Amino acid sequence: MSRQASSIARRMSAIRPFQVMELLARAKALEAQGRSIVHMEIGEPDFDTPAPVVAAARRVLDKGSVPYASAAGLPALREAIAEWYRARYGVEVAPSRILVTPGSSGALLLAAGVLLDPGDRVLMADPSYPCNRNFVRFVGAESVGVPVGPETAYQLSPALIDAHWSETVRMVMLASPSNPTGTTIAPDALRAIVEQVQTRGARLIVDEIYHGLTYGRELGTALAVSPEVFVINSFSKYFGMTGWRIGWLVCPESYRREAEKLAQNIFISASTLSQQAAMAAFTPECVEILEARRREFQRRRDFLVPALRALGFDIPVVPEGAFYVYAGCSRLTDDSDRFCFDLLERAGVAVTPGTDFGEHRARGHVRFAYTTSLEHLEEGVERLRRFLG
Amino acid sequence: MSRQASSIARRMSAIRPFQVMELLARAKALEAQGRSIVHMEIGEPDFDTPAPVVAAARRVLDKGSVPYASAAGLPALREAIAEWYRARYGVEVAPSRILVTPGSSGALLLAAGVLLDPGDRVLMADPSYPCNRNFVRFVGAESVGVPVGPETAYQLSPALIDAHWSETVRMVMLASPSNPTGTTIAPDALRAIVEQVQTRGARLIVDEIYHGLTYGRELGTALAVSPEVFVINSFSKYFGMTGWRIGWLVCPESYRREAEKLAQNIFISASTLSQQAAMAAFTPECVEILEARRREFQRRRDFLVPALRALGFDIPVVPEGAFYVYAGCSRLTDDSDRFCFDLLERAGVAVTPGTDFGEHRARGHVRFAYTTSLEHLEEGVERLRRFLG
Repeated sequence: MSRQASSIARRMSAIRPFQVMELLARAKALEAQGRSIVHMEIGEPDFDTPAPVVAAARRVLDKGSVPYASAAGLPALREAIAEWYRARYGVEVAPSRILVTPGSSGALLLAAGVLLDPGDRVLMADPSYPCNRNFVRFVGAESVGVPVGPETAYQLSPALIDAHWSETVRMVMLASPSNPTGTTIAPDALRAIVEQVQTRGARLIVDEIYHGLTYGRELGTALAVSPEVFVINSFSKYFGMTGWRIGWLVCPESYRREAEKLAQNIFISASTLSQQAAMAAFTPECVEILEARRREFQRRRDFLVPALRALGFDIPVVPEGAFYVYAGCSRLTDDSDRFCFDLLERAGVAVTPGTDFGEHRARGHVRFAYTTSLEHLEEGVERLRRFLG
Repeated sequence: MSRQASSIARRMSAIRPFQVMELLARAKALEAQGRSIVHMEIGEPDFDTPAPVVAAARRVLDKGSVPYASAAGLPALREAIAEWYRARYGVEVAPSRILVTPGSSGALLLAAGVLLDPGDRVLMADPSYPCNRNFVRFVGAESVGVPVGPETAYQLSPALIDAHWSETVRMVMLASPSNPTGTTIAPDALRAIVEQVQTRGARLIVDEIYHGLTYGRELGTALAVSPEVFVINSFSKYFGMTGWRIGWLVCPESYRREAEKLAQNIFISASTLSQQAAMAAFTPECVEILEARRREFQRRRDFLVPALRALGFDIPVVPEGAFYVYAGCSRLTDDSDRFCFDLLERAGVAVTPGTDFGEHRARGHVRFAYTTSLEHLEEGVERLRRFLG
């Protein structure tokens, strides 16, 4: 029987829009009315594109030719990423295993596409990056949110994976540092999970998008643990290139041809200009800029965490990375959605409700992003203090 | 039962790599050895990015800030595209129905994602753009290649659609001008198909990626026939911005929220720099450059079609657009795959075998692209003459 002409694919009913989008739209409307808004909801660094990257893009424009790149990415950029792994992590990654993608979104889509059949299950932390579950649903698979809390620093653990395992689990996703919690996974736990997932014939995907943005300690890459792990990374966060839309996937040798074939078909290639510009992101001159930004993010975190605690937010685990604080607000409200909209309307502070990141105790949490200046953060905290008082 | 760790999602076995990629790799290897190759296989204009677009990109870089765009695209670019429909076609399209995407690849993925459930069938011409069937397979639906020939200018017709209809057909795809045939669909046939598909409760998607590149007549957009059609377009071909990876989807009003929600999740946004640069593509200064290029493409076509006919290729329908000639080669070979590889090895001419575009009489066809200078085309034809003689 044919359906109504306006019918929509069934998968779309499982894919919800983000609360933060509605909140952002309202924030912009308030600003258009002349209201001052402190933005602590945005997952985007507030720094410009690093000057060496801009200069590299200019040199491309001087030539005027911006043709398609090959589907897996410009060979020189894949080499540069491999060199980054060598220099930064002491890990050898063959450039042939690196695919440059339109943002890490593209990398997630490729990984889901080559790995997941309809009906397969994917374990991921609840809370986690909201799009992750939707990539899984997009290819007809099922995401299983595993409730996590401060006991495991909001990360999956071998015991949690064990408790949620079933025969149809095909993939386990980790994020370290995590969005929204900013927490990292301990090296021992990572090694145990790699072993556990591989033994059971499933695949581990590790989101390392916020690598480089850790405060106090350097993280190792999961690629050092096993070449059979899929790793997702991005030029958006540490490298400050959000609007350039460029990221990468490192996949095991046995998947690289499939991933490349899929990239040919669904992307053709990532932006050539962005790829050429990104080559400059690894230069010492650029890394110096990025490290200064990292120190600035650390100053912001070091201000924000105690300030929020003093206001009554629960932050049982100090976030070690990314630019987020996932804060318990159950002493302040029983509905973080309403809390966020009230806070915006009445106090001019925009933060993201926990419900964007999952279901587990989501109405008792909000996410603060410290992607705005220390001065703005201080103003935001002051407005919060008055709002709560 | 858990699968082998190296197992690959089932969909991937239905997605084949393109012959032309292997051929291109071989062509590059030959060039590295010092061989001269005439490239008539590449679906990419040989012109640089238009100067006004480059200048607009430079102005963005001067500011240094390249943040995420909103998921549906920069409002100013969506307005500019709407104005293009108004000025060029005399059609009103609400900017809210226009989504800017990472290439038209992104537009195809969105359309497939919001429309197709697993098991749905999609009718498309055989031959057609090879990725089309793979977008359909990616979301678990089934592509049905409808054999087309010179009788319908290699396009679907109401009679062909009728003959291949079944209750599970959910989508019909047209491309005008078509890749690989360069042919267009007659206005009467288009109107009849719109009516036919809508009456049956399915959806029509029209690929207008090669609009602007027609020789001798202007094409109307399918949006003038009905606002319920999905239209795919791109800045890659007429606008000469391949490596910038930017295109757009026009969707019916009742789908725009779903398409935007999906774009938020699987893309975040298209390249902001590319979007800002693309705004300059519609300026009179830029259009003047593009129209001069169009006249150059027409000169090439007008040389190539009779030259290929004189060599024994069958071209029963003169291609009216794009930059392709889909030529029958059954008087010259019974295996176009081998023919193409022989032609490359022995004569240094690269063309694409018909098998990349479908199955119907594919071994009896090759696709010539006139994306190289008239001088190179003349040399290519001379080499072909010697090869065949």
